[in-house]
Amino acid sequence: MSKANLLSLLEEREGQYVSGEEISRALNVSRTAVWKQVRKLEADGYRIEAVPRLGYRLTAKPSRLTLQELLPKLQTTSFGRRLTLLDVTDSTQNELRKLAEQGVAEGTLVIAEQQTSGRGRMGRSWVSPFGKGIWMSLLLRPPVSLPLTPQLTLLAAVALSRAISQQLPELDIGIKWPNDLLVGGKKISGILLESAAEDERLNYVVVGLGISANLEAGDYPEELLDKAISLKMASGESVDRSALIASVLEQFEQLYKLYLEQGFAPIRTLWEARSVTLGKRTELYTPQGKVVGVPLGLDEMGGLRVELEDGSLRTVYSAEVGASG
Amino acid sequence: MSKANLLSLLEEREGQYVSGEEISRALNVSRTAVWKQVRKLEADGYRIEAVPRLGYRLTAKPSRLTLQELLPKLQTTSFGRRLTLLDVTDSTQNELRKLAEQGVAEGTLVIAEQQTSGRGRMGRSWVSPFGKGIWMSLLLRPPVSLPLTPQLTLLAAVALSRAISQQLPELDIGIKWPNDLLVGGKKISGILLESAAEDERLNYVVVGLGISANLEAGDYPEELLDKAISLKMASGESVDRSALIASVLEQFEQLYKLYLEQGFAPIRTLWEARSVTLGKRTELYTPQGKVVGVPLGLDEMGGLRVELEDGSLRTVYSAEVGASG
Repeated sequence: MSKANLLSLLEEREGQYVSGEEISRALNVSRTAVWKQVRKLEADGYRIEAVPRLGYRLTAKPSRLTLQELLPKLQTTSFGRRLTLLDVTDSTQNELRKLAEQGVAEGTLVIAEQQTSGRGRMGRSWVSPFGKGIWMSLLLRPPVSLPLTPQLTLLAAVALSRAISQQLPELDIGIKWPNDLLVGGKKISGILLESAAEDERLNYVVVGLGISANLEAGDYPEELLDKAISLKMASGESVDRSALIASVLEQFEQLYKLYLEQGFAPIRTLWEARSVTLGKRTELYTPQGKVVGVPLGLDEMGGLRVELEDGSLRTVYSAEVGASG
Repeated sequence: MSKANLLSLLEEREGQYVSGEEISRALNVSRTAVWKQVRKLEADGYRIEAVPRLGYRLTAKPSRLTLQELLPKLQTTSFGRRLTLLDVTDSTQNELRKLAEQGVAEGTLVIAEQQTSGRGRMGRSWVSPFGKGIWMSLLLRPPVSLPLTPQLTLLAAVALSRAISQQLPELDIGIKWPNDLLVGGKKISGILLESAAEDERLNYVVVGLGISANLEAGDYPEELLDKAISLKMASGESVDRSALIASVLEQFEQLYKLYLEQGFAPIRTLWEARSVTLGKRTELYTPQGKVVGVPLGLDEMGGLRVELEDGSLRTVYSAEVGASG
């Protein structure tokens, strides 16, 4: 028996109790097996009430993103205006890259309820269970040259933090260089930009945005619990995912337009104002080795200006930020 | 009748005359059709002698790259040590990108005798007829961050110009920013770097190298003849393609090692010494609009420092170089 069989049975009789005996007869499995599948459905976000002698009753289904709910909230002109909404995919980045190679327009968006191989920075995997987060990828075709791509990485972090603040103003969100968003030192989202370029010309950028919206502690591997937190865990309330998606697209489009019109300067100011990386002794692991110093701010290219221990200045473009303090 | 049928017939009887009548009977076509296909084979590099009353005789085949000839000439440790040699492909860039996505190692090389959709800068097509040029793509996985990719573009131009000078020391080769090689103001080669990055980390760079080695004037579309020239046309002699490939790989590997050890400074000096772009009034078409000024040199990132007409300095990272003078 799969949990899908059990689910159809409960859905057919939604609101009514179905006895364990009836289920075990209908699906030809033991009552223990029935109970195990009930637990699995609960882990997926279904609420199933179990009452002795009456049986099981489906009382709530996991929230599901729908176009009907999302589209009326969209305030953008191009971001998300071409949109694919998937149940499950290996990774929205892979889906959108295929579309990008086929030539789809800037602003094209792919959202999935679940990713089976969600990817984070440095090839790490990204926890993306069904119906609980926002796992999406947005296509940019920026008319800027390749060396300026880090500016887009920083812009994405500002856009995402502004959107979350709009929905959950009580959360104090900080940006860890270059683009992790933290609440109380724990990561609430991840951003990954995959760029394709010919010589110094950017062809496209696939911006992956992962927001741990309504995950519960049990959704995380235990070793991540001191490093990661969901918006729901941090704020104590469930997040309206479609409202948050609409906010992210709106903020992102606004900042992107600002960037194309006025350049990086306003983005730099917004980023620095929200950063938690500046002014603290930090270890940076660059491709050329470890750098220890105090990050002072961004340079006009988007690099991180770091004051080393000997007082000299160094600009870092690519690094993992390690322990600070 | 295809030219392939005719070719097999002539090859079967290599060194002997086959009469036009016999061919037209064997292939069931008119003698005029036979003559047309003979002309096509000649255009592909076959030499076919036509003698009245005796018929046609195959006297020479186009030169063909072979591993037997190439491998003994290779002096490199990794560049070209993993090698695919193809007869025909759409584009060696596409072939190598597929391999790169599968994770093959740095230094992997794809060479083709002919490309059906060879690509140049800015999405332009690239003339790449059978057996007459060097059409190849080399994989790099440089441990440098994305903003430094233009340095590799410049490095490739230096490596290629040094290799050609090694084989044909009489040619005076100049580099037009960023990476076109010119002889007497005409283009002899093209370089195209396709980069894939995650955030500010380069994943891989596919370096496309196209060298118009032994093309004849008739191989070019007429409108290109005042802009492009082959090494054979420029030097008056046929180029040993496998020796030139070996030189390119050797020079490229040497400079790449130097770059990873000592950074961009030595590459910058070598590039500037060979440039024909510096010191002359130049029009640069950037994504942000036209810039007119005198290029003075490279900056430490690989950008082109241009003195504008009002005396101010501007650094350009991405542009098409237009008319100068």
